[in-house]
Amino acid sequence: MNNLVEGVLKRNRVALSKTITAVENEYEEAAEIMTEIYPHTGNAYVIGITGSPGAGKSTLTDKLAKEYRRRGKTVGIVAIDPTSPYSGGAILGDRIRMMDLISDPGIFVRSMATRGSLGGLSQKSGDAVKLMDAYGMDVIIVETVGVGQSEVDIIKTADTTMVVAVPGGGDDIQAIKAGILEIGDLFTINKADREGAEKLNIELEMMLHLGGTEGKAWLPPINRTVASKNEGVVAVVDSIEEHKKYLIESNQLEKVRANRIKSEVIAMLSDKVNRYIDEKIVATDDFAKTIAKLKTREIEPYSVVDKIINNVLK
Amino acid sequence: MNNLVEGVLKRNRVALSKTITAVENEYEEAAEIMTEIYPHTGNAYVIGITGSPGAGKSTLTDKLAKEYRRRGKTVGIVAIDPTSPYSGGAILGDRIRMMDLISDPGIFVRSMATRGSLGGLSQKSGDAVKLMDAYGMDVIIVETVGVGQSEVDIIKTADTTMVVAVPGGGDDIQAIKAGILEIGDLFTINKADREGAEKLNIELEMMLHLGGTEGKAWLPPINRTVASKNEGVVAVVDSIEEHKKYLIESNQLEKVRANRIKSEVIAMLSDKVNRYIDEKIVATDDFAKTIAKLKTREIEPYSVVDKIINNVLK
Repeated sequence: MNNLVEGVLKRNRVALSKTITAVENEYEEAAEIMTEIYPHTGNAYVIGITGSPGAGKSTLTDKLAKEYRRRGKTVGIVAIDPTSPYSGGAILGDRIRMMDLISDPGIFVRSMATRGSLGGLSQKSGDAVKLMDAYGMDVIIVETVGVGQSEVDIIKTADTTMVVAVPGGGDDIQAIKAGILEIGDLFTINKADREGAEKLNIELEMMLHLGGTEGKAWLPPINRTVASKNEGVVAVVDSIEEHKKYLIESNQLEKVRANRIKSEVIAMLSDKVNRYIDEKIVATDDFAKTIAKLKTREIEPYSVVDKIINNVLK
Repeated sequence: MNNLVEGVLKRNRVALSKTITAVENEYEEAAEIMTEIYPHTGNAYVIGITGSPGAGKSTLTDKLAKEYRRRGKTVGIVAIDPTSPYSGGAILGDRIRMMDLISDPGIFVRSMATRGSLGGLSQKSGDAVKLMDAYGMDVIIVETVGVGQSEVDIIKTADTTMVVAVPGGGDDIQAIKAGILEIGDLFTINKADREGAEKLNIELEMMLHLGGTEGKAWLPPINRTVASKNEGVVAVVDSIEEHKKYLIESNQLEKVRANRIKSEVIAMLSDKVNRYIDEKIVATDDFAKTIAKLKTREIEPYSVVDKIINNVLK
């Protein structure tokens, strides 16, 4: 067995950190690590937290983690940095906020930058979750910005998904509309001491009940928090636990998890194929010549693509 | 030649509308249409507009279109709706706002929903641009929400990319940080009569000049607008035209367009392969059995994926 994997299973923090780095940077041993880790996964409860930038997700995540600690649970946090795919760096604030948590051995926080393809990121964040799971974390919180298909894909794989909204300007509801309303198992209005919290609450309720409430086994609760003052956090954890109970009792949890595995495998397949296209096709001189001909309109892209596909797929 | 294509080339609005519908809904004739259209493309100037939800992109786009009309240019608008990938509908407001423009035969507005995969959307919006281009629109504006890799990918292919920011709450800069700072050829602070416009301007300038301004051939200008009052719109169009001039004089435009074609072909390849995976692998009974075994941890996904890939790729 890989030394690092052995370390993770023995709950060695340094080993956990190193394996996540190996996965994130695609070190050669990453595949070996994940292959050996896999049989030891499947025990953690995964919570996805999403919402627009500035909704206070990070602060809320920290407070939720502390509440879970108070309840005797160990907590892993995978924070997906909304940093540029170009510059690559992590937001300093995120690094700083962790300092507060880092002294607790029952919490492990890992920030992952969105550099490179988000397709790859979805796999990497999933691998980080698996590593924390195998390490023995009871609860793992994955936190990411919620606008954009790729981010939604990442969050969708959680057992319980929470959407964080924030009052202000009347524009907030637009952000929520942008593809994340349907994935929320619960909603939290953070910064609820701001003007407009009541209005946002009503709007959210209206949107959630748009199709009627009848026959729906789970109605997403809407909680209000002021995470910076630790207000309302206990109720949010209660709601998450209620949702977990609902999933277990209705046999939904097994389905959610089968879907997660399915999504992961599809993402891995897609990623591999895209890499293959990048390396074996796009990087060739032939491809450069094709682009030049397309530019002058000598040829057209639709038959070019068909030809390449026929050469690539069995 | 396809009848609809003939119609588009003869500047028939109904034909243009129908071809875009054919592309959006993947009608059988879509490939034929795009193959025949391609030689007639490459003349329009493509402007990408992006920014957080609520930044007022739609209103600004409308005003820019009108200013271009005043300057004697015809304008196509491709508005990518930030609607749910699940519910599929388009935001009503977007439909309504078009009514104002629709009476002008020199403007054509098309809203595209983000239902289904964004990968596919990127191709479809690119096809809509090509159709408007072949129709003879001088300027084509592509407008989309700017957070998320896929949206960024769509906007990146424009000749000139404008990022729209909006003052308020101090959280706005986070949205801009989220991967779109580097793609802005120009920045517009909309709703600039709001408090915080000056602060946002300073922050933006600081971020843009972070690496120093020396040796940079193009420094993104920051304009301020109140689009709803048509304030500052002329200056924005001037900035776009300046950027266009810069691209032409520095021979960058050709590079930008070659890159656009390259991105398009790669997206088409990736989309085709992913469809293949969906249809030929994911939909099979074998795959369902594999997922079940993965769930019980009998097998692990990394070698499963390798095996599938070996069966699929030549």
